[in-house]
Amino acid sequence: MNFTSFNPPVRTLMGPGPSDVHPRVLTAMARPTIGHLDPAFVAMMEEIKALLQYAFQTSNALTIPISAPASAGMEACFVNLVEPGEKVIVCINGVFGGRMKENVERSGGVPIVVDDAWGEPVDPNKLDDALKAHRDARIVAFVHAETSTGVQSDARKLAEIAHHHDCLAIVDTVTSLGGSPLKVDEWDLDAVFSGSQKCLSCPPGLSPVTFNDRAVDKIKKRNTKIQSWFLDLNLVMGYWGSGKRAYHHTAPVNQLYGLHEALAMLQEEGLENAWTRHQQQHHALRSGIEAMGLSFLVHPSARLPQLNAIMVPEGVDEAMLRSRLLNEYNLEIGAGLGELAGKIVRIGLMGYGANMKNVMYCLEALEAVLADMRAPIRTGVAMNAAQSAAVLN
Amino acid sequence: MNFTSFNPPVRTLMGPGPSDVHPRVLTAMARPTIGHLDPAFVAMMEEIKALLQYAFQTSNALTIPISAPASAGMEACFVNLVEPGEKVIVCINGVFGGRMKENVERSGGVPIVVDDAWGEPVDPNKLDDALKAHRDARIVAFVHAETSTGVQSDARKLAEIAHHHDCLAIVDTVTSLGGSPLKVDEWDLDAVFSGSQKCLSCPPGLSPVTFNDRAVDKIKKRNTKIQSWFLDLNLVMGYWGSGKRAYHHTAPVNQLYGLHEALAMLQEEGLENAWTRHQQQHHALRSGIEAMGLSFLVHPSARLPQLNAIMVPEGVDEAMLRSRLLNEYNLEIGAGLGELAGKIVRIGLMGYGANMKNVMYCLEALEAVLADMRAPIRTGVAMNAAQSAAVLN
Repeated sequence: MNFTSFNPPVRTLMGPGPSDVHPRVLTAMARPTIGHLDPAFVAMMEEIKALLQYAFQTSNALTIPISAPASAGMEACFVNLVEPGEKVIVCINGVFGGRMKENVERSGGVPIVVDDAWGEPVDPNKLDDALKAHRDARIVAFVHAETSTGVQSDARKLAEIAHHHDCLAIVDTVTSLGGSPLKVDEWDLDAVFSGSQKCLSCPPGLSPVTFNDRAVDKIKKRNTKIQSWFLDLNLVMGYWGSGKRAYHHTAPVNQLYGLHEALAMLQEEGLENAWTRHQQQHHALRSGIEAMGLSFLVHPSARLPQLNAIMVPEGVDEAMLRSRLLNEYNLEIGAGLGELAGKIVRIGLMGYGANMKNVMYCLEALEAVLADMRAPIRTGVAMNAAQSAAVLN
Repeated sequence: MNFTSFNPPVRTLMGPGPSDVHPRVLTAMARPTIGHLDPAFVAMMEEIKALLQYAFQTSNALTIPISAPASAGMEACFVNLVEPGEKVIVCINGVFGGRMKENVERSGGVPIVVDDAWGEPVDPNKLDDALKAHRDARIVAFVHAETSTGVQSDARKLAEIAHHHDCLAIVDTVTSLGGSPLKVDEWDLDAVFSGSQKCLSCPPGLSPVTFNDRAVDKIKKRNTKIQSWFLDLNLVMGYWGSGKRAYHHTAPVNQLYGLHEALAMLQEEGLENAWTRHQQQHHALRSGIEAMGLSFLVHPSARLPQLNAIMVPEGVDEAMLRSRLLNEYNLEIGAGLGELAGKIVRIGLMGYGANMKNVMYCLEALEAVLADMRAPIRTGVAMNAAQSAAVLN
């Protein structure tokens, strides 16, 4: 055994995340480590909190990054808010709704599932019906932007229904934060979690979360101790809260440098401008995709610009397609998950990666590989897919 | 609000961790992000597992880094191994024993505490007595290297006693891994967790763990579901195990670049050489500290070379001392925790930071600030503390 330094290949990351990371963020990751209680570090933590409030469009004091990937941010929401025996309505229209159900069960709660087809948004009427049938439920959980399908649901409407029935709303915004409109305060979302590796263009490893007063109040009034020590927000806030910092865990210092840089860049660009950019690049990609004769899984009314689920043409081996894009073009796109495995590929346009160069490169590469695989595409049109996208850029 | 890039001050990190990070590790952190299922990444994961086996001195197949700080690694051990109602003997001789007790409770277990004074190692006889009094206990938990006091306990002996009573041993090696002898297989430790930010000289954010067959068997035979989805090792191993990788969470890609580089450097140096280096630098530091008339909290027989708990001289304001070292010398040393707050400072000699330059700088700075604070030190000798250390280097 004699291992040397690992030098990764330079990929273009257009899967469901991680997305391409801006050089400024990578540079920030390599700055000298300082202590997690260093006054200079604490000052940077305050900036991260303010920048996350901006990204989430909230004034919630409890707006921080959890020191672990988004799955841990999801778990933080459930273990802090759900008490044993409590009913939680979980809307499932993809992989991540299913994961939330798992979290409810492991937190000792009782999940009531509202099912929608994968590729469809959550149906507000079904949620309303479920809440009428389960008047003792106190929490509703749903995914704003389903990474597994590229669908967005109407978070404002779903939260409104939840509140009408005296429930809190736990919302998965892993793929929406920074990429498409998300307004935590205006939409009155109670507990929200996200990830660093999607539209914020950071490496994976951190999970921004925000909790409003209603959610914090529920945590404070719990009858039972929170089952996780690491994710207990009462303890976490001793470190991240204002005032004197108490040691809880050792924060991932260099990861937080990266997040700070990415959030500062988002502020420089402006949140609305970032949303518009994602939309524009999506239009360009769509134009090229459709010119190739390919189609989208999701209806335009519910389609996320940053996560494009494309139907795999009849007769094309999806795994081979992705493998050839990776090996011949250093281009990563995503597979379908669960019931969509083999049927779709997922093309991410996230954060820094939502740019003209990536869109055109992806279209050219996709076209070349599909042509070579003798997919039934309309060749004449397909040859011009990238040009077609270019017009829009 | 208009935040610019964060440029941290360049500190010398000689607290209880994070420790100074080698430039090679920082450089690795900034390499281009690739996908968490990329074949190139998966190959690197295999190298990390092999390198961690070397660092832990084990052939355990389940030897991986948990994607979160050491507190989550600790929690992974308890939520996977403890079943509701199960008795766990927890040896407490500092802060981290207390944290393990919290973890037992939150995992639904019943902690039985074996108390030893802070600054003393765990007494094997007391453990044996507790196991005789609680024959239904199935797990023993203790800290090999107490970061809060600088004490090392006899892990081999304690594990032997645990096994004699049919118990598994959960062992905290956060501060020992890579810094002083730790032999997981030879000592027959069952479930072991550590951290990236101590003697491995990585930024904080990852927690190496290793589980032997006995521990894995207990997990597989559980009657109840593991309460954490994120830390459920059955699921984590679907991603980290050999064979085809299943998506669980998105691994912190760039953090893992850093860990890989740090472990490769440990292999280049040789584990025994690293242990010797920590011991040598400790001798140098000790020589200077004693020449200044200062003393250690811990008896030499149980003293960790990498974590030096120094008694604060009478009349010296410990917070002021640390603050001046930080502000005037960019030197971070650690405070005492809990009952030792204000009474000791903790000087870390960890990983890359365990070098002659750090030792001499620390002694010079400490001497100068203490002299200025008019501490009752023997001036003539103190002036030569650094030279005294230099002779040993």
